[in-house]
Amino acid sequence: MNNELTITEGSITTPQGFKASGVHCFIKQTGPDLALIASDTPCSVAAMFTTNRVPASCIIIDREKAETGRGQAIVINSGNANACTGQQGLADSREMAALAAAELHIDPALVYVASTGVIGHHLPMQLIRDAMPQAGAALSYDGGMDALRAIMTTDTRPKHLVVSFELDGKSCSIGAIAKGSGMINPNMATMICVMTSDVAIEQPLLLAALREAVSVSFNMLTIDGEMSTNDCIFLFANGQAKNKKITAANSDYQIFKNALNALAIAMTKKIARDGEGATKLVTVTVDQAQSHAEAEKAAKAIANSALVKTAIFGQDPNWGRVVQAIGASGVQVDADHFHIQFAGITVAENGSAIAYDQDKMRAAQQQEEIRIYAGLGAGQESATVFTCDLTHDYITINADYHT
Amino acid sequence: MNNELTITEGSITTPQGFKASGVHCFIKQTGPDLALIASDTPCSVAAMFTTNRVPASCIIIDREKAETGRGQAIVINSGNANACTGQQGLADSREMAALAAAELHIDPALVYVASTGVIGHHLPMQLIRDAMPQAGAALSYDGGMDALRAIMTTDTRPKHLVVSFELDGKSCSIGAIAKGSGMINPNMATMICVMTSDVAIEQPLLLAALREAVSVSFNMLTIDGEMSTNDCIFLFANGQAKNKKITAANSDYQIFKNALNALAIAMTKKIARDGEGATKLVTVTVDQAQSHAEAEKAAKAIANSALVKTAIFGQDPNWGRVVQAIGASGVQVDADHFHIQFAGITVAENGSAIAYDQDKMRAAQQQEEIRIYAGLGAGQESATVFTCDLTHDYITINADYHT
Repeated sequence: MNNELTITEGSITTPQGFKASGVHCFIKQTGPDLALIASDTPCSVAAMFTTNRVPASCIIIDREKAETGRGQAIVINSGNANACTGQQGLADSREMAALAAAELHIDPALVYVASTGVIGHHLPMQLIRDAMPQAGAALSYDGGMDALRAIMTTDTRPKHLVVSFELDGKSCSIGAIAKGSGMINPNMATMICVMTSDVAIEQPLLLAALREAVSVSFNMLTIDGEMSTNDCIFLFANGQAKNKKITAANSDYQIFKNALNALAIAMTKKIARDGEGATKLVTVTVDQAQSHAEAEKAAKAIANSALVKTAIFGQDPNWGRVVQAIGASGVQVDADHFHIQFAGITVAENGSAIAYDQDKMRAAQQQEEIRIYAGLGAGQESATVFTCDLTHDYITINADYHT
Repeated sequence: MNNELTITEGSITTPQGFKASGVHCFIKQTGPDLALIASDTPCSVAAMFTTNRVPASCIIIDREKAETGRGQAIVINSGNANACTGQQGLADSREMAALAAAELHIDPALVYVASTGVIGHHLPMQLIRDAMPQAGAALSYDGGMDALRAIMTTDTRPKHLVVSFELDGKSCSIGAIAKGSGMINPNMATMICVMTSDVAIEQPLLLAALREAVSVSFNMLTIDGEMSTNDCIFLFANGQAKNKKITAANSDYQIFKNALNALAIAMTKKIARDGEGATKLVTVTVDQAQSHAEAEKAAKAIANSALVKTAIFGQDPNWGRVVQAIGASGVQVDADHFHIQFAGITVAENGSAIAYDQDKMRAAQQQEEIRIYAGLGAGQESATVFTCDLTHDYITINADYHT
């Protein structure tokens, strides 16, 4: 048995038995804006949703469906979030699922719905009705990138990957596509991620694996500290790899889980790197915290600090701002024993500045990925958070966008 | 008795019996950087300090002194925060107080110390030793503005006011100076506010009044969601107005408290208006919340939202971003009954967009002060928070500053 993972540039139609399409239904003036993704056979489905108290209509109906742990397809539109749209919004999301189900000749209960775009406007349902047959006709076993292009909004790079591995002698894979370049931004670009896999696995284990993967990846991602009304992630597993079905937390489950974690972290880094206006991927690790919760709190405080993020944009290893963010977060920190690294170079030790090689530091700050490490001197726990720098382009993108 | 408050352009030497000076001790290359403020006689003193877990040395020694409720002077340097400086930092803060006390011929226990500037560097004590006699010699009954100029760093406008009122037939006043254009920024410009008053008042009442005033003003201020290692506010009351000493929460106390609240809110607005890179003062009121804590949480979530702040910079009444911020804050909100106003114009009612006059809105968005109002439809409580917009200049100021 080969335990190696390979991460490559595939997408959601790389795993066996998944088709996808992306067509233009004219919610947006240009580009495709309606994606359909379907498995040949019913799947175990795991899904996680935004905890925003004002969720979009699609989130509300998907949450109910996800209780069943079953599904076969998802239809996604961009350009309109169908959020803050009341009873009509719920009816529209249900109709969108029904339209896709009719096209696929399957039960509407097996079709999930996602929307992304402006808040507070009703979906133009006639456009979706008119375009659904085209989306159905265009379904293809290599249509993953078409579907991805149909869900992108302010993204500057397509975000898609596939992880391959072996289970039980069978070639297996998990593919992913995602959109989002802020946790939410121009009222657009809320995060949506769809993952597909040909692995045979029982739904409770699929959900447990997804929860663990999200806890170390997407839930550790922050672009601008904002949480959207439409964030969601779906993982469909159709069993077409014909591996011995995973029904317990055995070694096959571990392999699957490791592959899923690696894929989720790689996708998360892609989103962080493509944060609105970003020039750099930033990974923040807080170590020596009193608890995991405190490590995460401090790491997110650093990652959300406008001052830390502008310092990284300015290529300045400004550790005073990191300390200020940690201190303000309220976590336990030993003022005489914390230490800080910027891009692998120690700048503060035992609570005080230390001298470092200025030339090495200048070179390190120019890299595309900047790692910040903070040891709190208060315990044993650690956490890593992914973000990007804060730049002029973030302001331009978000100030110039008009509702 | 005249219950009217008058807020005018005075400062900390407007109340009777206070002298101040500002001199150049060369911690900073240009401009004054050492301020001395002293009452002719001992005062009741109330003070409040940052809750940052890594406080500066001056904060640590002032906290102890403030326990006594007594004081007569404060010495403040800019250009160096004396934060993350360990035992030497504490010794330096104590020496700075002792130097000022010697100059004033008073007990060092009566002298407070504040510092603002870069983090992680020891105070250049010889410069302070050399300049203290000059600071003492320059003390003057109209030196308030000199002291203010010596504590300013990235501030673009001096922030000073005085409120005048009558107590017991006597003319009384409270003067204030403040610095700060981010909660913290370029490792500089942490908030410091000094208030002086000639009112005779017992210290526990002075502290109670300050706490209440801060809770509706400075604690409701956010420029960039950052909390500094050096934030502090001091209120000295020397009794020289010769009013009947306030010893109970009577009508005189109410007048004093109202005056202090008005002064604190006016100073807070000045700081928000001068936020780094700001073009607008923004006041966010959240109403119909389930509790005051939830109202404050939602208002701060809106005020700290990079998306809301860039929308205001872009003069766009983007209510979707306000709803997203409220929803993400986790407070109770009725998705079918919230309503939102931008600059006095209703943009969403009963959870949905409503039409408004585009010309009126364009004009309203161009004002220097923008009010955002959000009714959550969940209760009776409200809170108001003060902030500013997020602009290109914030990025420029904070990315171009180098440690």
